[in-house]
Formats: sequence, structure tokens, C-alpha cells
Amino acid sequence: MWRVMETPLNCAEEQQPPPAFPASWSTVTPQESPADRNDKGNAVGFVLVHAGAGYHSESKAKEYKHVCKRACQRAVDRLKAGALAVDAVTAALVELEDSPFTNAGMGSNLNLSGEIECDASIMDGKSLRYGAVGAVSGINNPVLVANRLLSEAQKGKLSAGRIPPCFLVGRGAHDWAVNHGIPPCPSEKMATKFSLSAYKRNKHKMELAEKVDTGFNHHSKKRRQASETENGSGLLDTVGAIVVDREGNVAAAVSSGGLAMKHPGRVGQAAHHGCGCWAENTSTLNPYSTAVSTSGCGEHLIRTMLARECSSAMQCEDAHQALLEAMQNKFISSPFLASEDCVLGGVIVLRCCRCSDAQPSPDIQAILVEFLWSHTTESMCVGYMSAQDGKAKVSEVGERMER
Amino acid sequence: MWRVMETPLNCAEEQQPPPAFPASWSTVTPQESPADRNDKGNAVGFVLVHAGAGYHSESKAKEYKHVCKRACQRAVDRLKAGALAVDAVTAALVELEDSPFTNAGMGSNLNLSGEIECDASIMDGKSLRYGAVGAVSGINNPVLVANRLLSEAQKGKLSAGRIPPCFLVGRGAHDWAVNHGIPPCPSEKMATKFSLSAYKRNKHKMELAEKVDTGFNHHSKKRRQASETENGSGLLDTVGAIVVDREGNVAAAVSSGGLAMKHPGRVGQAAHHGCGCWAENTSTLNPYSTAVSTSGCGEHLIRTMLARECSSAMQCEDAHQALLEAMQNKFISSPFLASEDCVLGGVIVLRCCRCSDAQPSPDIQAILVEFLWSHTTESMCVGYMSAQDGKAKVSEVGERMER
Repeated sequence: MWRVMETPLNCAEEQQPPPAFPASWSTVTPQESPADRNDKGNAVGFVLVHAGAGYHSESKAKEYKHVCKRACQRAVDRLKAGALAVDAVTAALVELEDSPFTNAGMGSNLNLSGEIECDASIMDGKSLRYGAVGAVSGINNPVLVANRLLSEAQKGKLSAGRIPPCFLVGRGAHDWAVNHGIPPCPSEKMATKFSLSAYKRNKHKMELAEKVDTGFNHHSKKRRQASETENGSGLLDTVGAIVVDREGNVAAAVSSGGLAMKHPGRVGQAAHHGCGCWAENTSTLNPYSTAVSTSGCGEHLIRTMLARECSSAMQCEDAHQALLEAMQNKFISSPFLASEDCVLGGVIVLRCCRCSDAQPSPDIQAILVEFLWSHTTESMCVGYMSAQDGKAKVSEVGERMER
Repeated sequence: MWRVMETPLNCAEEQQPPPAFPASWSTVTPQESPADRNDKGNAVGFVLVHAGAGYHSESKAKEYKHVCKRACQRAVDRLKAGALAVDAVTAALVELEDSPFTNAGMGSNLNLSGEIECDASIMDGKSLRYGAVGAVSGINNPVLVANRLLSEAQKGKLSAGRIPPCFLVGRGAHDWAVNHGIPPCPSEKMATKFSLSAYKRNKHKMELAEKVDTGFNHHSKKRRQASETENGSGLLDTVGAIVVDREGNVAAAVSSGGLAMKHPGRVGQAAHHGCGCWAENTSTLNPYSTAVSTSGCGEHLIRTMLARECSSAMQCEDAHQALLEAMQNKFISSPFLASEDCVLGGVIVLRCCRCSDAQPSPDIQAILVEFLWSHTTESMCVGYMSAQDGKAKVSEVGERMER
């Protein structure tokens, strides 16, 4: 068995906007000290998690930091136990979903009918397989369904040559999950005091907005304009994680309760291949293994396929510059969002490669890991941890990028 | 108002496999005679449709040819009436869905529970917007819902700043459609004699296969192997169309009943952004406007994002070579399908550009249109028609590409 160490290539803590971007901008590459910190081959790996790009109140930010730390710890525990990236990333997501403060699993946003419908997906950089669920109700940990879809598909065809599904939605997804041993959860138990009061508040605002519009300007374009950008104020808290394991495999996952007051059946980027998460191991074509998880307005992230775009960009030499350019050209100034007045989203990104120059000894293979994040929203809470670290680090950056 | 003529750049009818591909291969660029055939500015445009990549019996092939012709005529009628590409492509899809012989809308494959659940999507190359429905029951023309989602989203935000959905699934999609004036259709009316008998036959085969496996080799890998590749024998008949209108705008659409005996809630490529269809008008970055619609095994088309890949490839100078390479490198030999023994799919592709060299007169702007198709399945029925043509042409090619 060979051993791994993490060594960041970029060590700069960068908070200044590059000249090309007029407003404030946050892309951070935290520093880790390069070291071969553990001789046990199974005690290595790295995880980066996010609790959503949005606006977080002081009290919520504190909870987010706690849950990000716990999610990192869960993933690292799995990595230390010898788990591969897919399992570790799932463990992180379960912790994030279980928090009543995040908009995923327990405590998710309620839709227009007052129901919870969740999206989640996972991608394995080794097999390049993907599993996803959309608009699924009554499942506390949608990421477990996505994970199971991925692992079931890896077993090959079903009876009579049927191709196993990679994407299930709605009632069918729920029933498949339960048939595969994932416990159902009564919907009323998934709603929290916080999500229920937010629903009532939003419903009241909506009714008020519609009454005002109807009274003054029926069927006008004004009715369509945002009197209040509700979706821009704290309700975009999709969660996600990206992991590299001891073998250098990457995996990515994402989970979301979706936009508050969304139409029933609406599926966002968290269930959309290439939009919510992406993971791709190194290959003859790609010098780096890359993993990405996104957060923000699902419709914007779907139309721009932001996860895959960021993953591709990460094959450039300068990861920091590549991410800035990808966020500017493939998201903020994307022709796919030309008609949008406010583009909301954030990404966490990880890339790694085997580095032959930095082998600590002949039987240890160094893996160099870089990780970054970037967002156009007011804040984005992220946490990260190496398998050698005693505890996770968290960061929340408070600048917002505007077009 | 300026006027348009269609002039193909490539005139070769190519049926020979290029040296790089060992098995038979079909990519066709039919010829049209270059001419300014109509002085009416609103009587120009071009449509290419497909009735699915799969295996078609003689009797079914005849029906497919008829419906492809009718679908082309419907689109051309709309183009002649001054409609833009999105409306014309929708009209073609409605005709394809209405046929009881295609696996879309009326006559769709039944799922494991004996129900019909349809996927459809549409993309507008001008606005780059996309609308999609997945696993929707009780709607005869799912493409109308996708189209309506697209047009509703173009109106801007909903009350209280809510972002309109681009992708709805299941019951929510059905209810949204009915609330937006799209008539529901009782599910029993959407099943045909043919689809019901196919369901009974498939169910029997499945039960037999499972009984044999259980008896001899319970929980073995053998159970997972295809005793009969049911999905490869005539049940992949997703339909689609691509259009360029008088202004040079492109649009693409796709609609499918999905794999026979699929799990309820399974969503295939026809509802997946970048997988089922793609349309992108020319821009500073792209010399060509491109439109693509795919057909085949949804899981393969999702993992490879084939529609978007083919669209990108079409920006190369040699369209024919570019499509061959895209099908080989991005689909047949794709690392995303490395574990699959049989890769099933087909695409129709269109690209066009304004040609300043070939202006017939100062007030007429020439648009050069190239169109191609390619498939790895036994056959793929396509039809095409220019707005100046008296009737549509159809073609069905019977070679199959194997890995």
C-alpha cells in the first residue's frame, strides 16, 4: 500500500478582486503546511464542504459553522476507516442534511403547497457515474438515495437486460428508496419551526405582492418584476461536499430543499448532471482530478452547467485565475444568463494530482491538493479538513459580487 | 425584411465508415440544390426530425416515415406562417407525439407499474433558455409543457421575486400544465393496443428471466447480465426535431416515453439539459448556429451529455468529420461509458451561418444550412424539409455501429 500526503500548490490567501472584476469578489485558497503527517496508508484524504451560498444571519452563520465542522469530521472519520471518496462525501452530506438549519433534508424550504421536496446528486470521479433524485418527499437523507442509485447501477443491468436508472424523481424515487432499505420519514417531521414560520411569512408576502399587482396593474410586466428578491435573502442554502481519498479518487455531492415557495415538482441544479456537482479522476486527457459542488439559484446553475464548467476550467495551470475566469465568463457574464439582473451562485472546487517531484520517500506517493471557493452571493459558509488534522477549519466570507 | 435561402456546404452522401471506425457507420449529409427559391421573406427555414434510434420492423418503419413527413410539414407550415424556430419545432414534436407508433406522448412505453410517464425538453438558440418536464403522466403532448415553461420563464420573475421554474416533474408538472391551459389526457387513452401488448410481453419476459435467475443463481452477477437486451430492440424511439427559421434562429426539442419497463419516476435524457437537445445561435464565440436532438438509451446520453458535446463539435470547420469524431470520442469510446458493453444512441445535427459570399442580391441574406445524423443503433428514421420544398424527404439507414 502506498501513502499519500496533501500539499497545496497555491499558498496565497486571496481576497482582493482582480482588476477584471469591478465589484468585490471572494476566492480563497487557504494554506496547509506541506508534510507527511501520517504513516498509516488509510489515514489520509481531504474534504471541503459548504452550507450554501446566500445571506446568513449572525445566528444562522454560527450554526452553519458548527455543522460544516461536524460534516468534515464525519467524512474524515470515514476516510480514516479506509472508505473511498464516494462514501466519505456521502457521510458529510448526511450530516449537512440532518441539520435543521440547512436547506437540505431536515428543515428544507417548503414549496408553494407547504410540502418538502428535495433534490440531491452524487458523482464518483473514478467510475464517472452519477446518481440523482429530484423532488422527492418523505426521505430525510436524499443523498443516500443518490448514492444507492450510483452503487446499484455499478452492479450492471437489471433482469431482462433493463438498464438501471441514474435519475429518479417524485413518488417513484421515494418508493425505490424504501424498497432499497432507505427509511422513509414522515414529511411533518422534516419541517422545522423555522421552515414553517418562513413558509407563513413568504406566503403572506406573496399574497400581498399579488394583491398589490392585481389592484394596480393587472397582467402587466410589473407583476413579474421582483418587488422583493426573496430568493436572494437567505433561502439558497443548498449544501455540498467534495472529497479526495487515499487513492486519489475524487467524489462530489450536493443536496437541496430548493427555492422557497417553488412550484411542486420543480427540480433544481442539485439533481441535474453537470450542474450541482462534478467529479472526474485524472486521465490521459486531464492532468488533474477535479471535484466541484455548487450552490445558489438552481435555474441559473442549470442553464450554465456551472459544476462541469468549473471542473473543466480547473485543468488550467493557475487554479485561482481559472476559477475567477470561469465564474466571470461562464456564470456572471454567461450568455446563458444575459437576461438575468442578478446571478446568484457559489462553488467549492478541489483539484489534485500526483506529484513525482515531491515524494517524501520511495514508498510514499504525494498527492497535491488545491481547494478554492467562490460566490456571487452575500456569503458562503465552507469548512475543510485533512485526514491528518485534529479539527476542521471554517470560513465565511461576506462580500458579494454584482454585475 | 431580409430574405434567406438554404444552401448546404457539404454535398456528399457519405455512407462509408471512416478508417478510424472498424464497424459500419452512418452519417449522412443529404444534398439540397442551392437556390433562392422564394421571394417571400416569411417562407423560409428548414426542419430535420427523427423518430428515434433503435430497431424498427418493416411495418413500423413505414409508419415512422409517414409521421416524419407529417412532422416536417407541420413545422414548415408554421415557418411559412411566420413562426420562429421554437414554435416550428414544437409543432413538429406535437405531430411526432400524436403518432401512436412513436415512443412519445400517445403510445409511449409503459413503465414497470404499467403507467405512462413522459419526458420532454426544448431549447431556444436565441435566448438560450430551456424548458423541460420529466416523468409527467396524463399529458398527451409533454413538449407543450416544456415550451410553455420556456415562454413563461421569459416573462421574468413571479410574484415576490420568485424565479420561474425551467424543469418540473411528476404530479407537479401535470398540475402546472393544466393550470396553464394545457389539456390533460386520461392515461388509459394514451396507451395503445401496441404499447399494452408490448408491456404484457415484456412483463412475462422479465418474470421468466427473474425466475430462471432465482432458481439457478440467486444474487449472482448473472442476474444482472442481459439475457435479452430488450432495450436494444425497438424500444428507444425517442422523437425529436431541430429547426432554423427565417431569422437564422435555431431551436431543438425532444420527447420520450422512456425505456420500456423503467422504474416509476425514472427520468431520461429527454428531460435533461444538454443531453436530449441543444440549440445555440451564432455569437462572437461561435461562428455557427447549432441545433441537436438525441435519441437512444437515456442513461448513456445523460452521462455523456451528448447533445451539448455534438453542438460544441459542430463549431469545427468540417461538420462531417467533427460529428464522426464526436460520436466516437464523446460517446462510443467515452470514458463516461467505459463499463458499458453496448452504447446505444443517435443524433440529428444542424448548423448554419450567414454567408456574405453567397448573397443572391443585396436585399437577400443567404443562410447556409448543413444537416447530418449519426447513430450506433440498427436504424434511425429521419425526415427533413426546407420551407421551399413541396414535400419532406425521409431516410432510414440500417447499419449499426459496434464497439
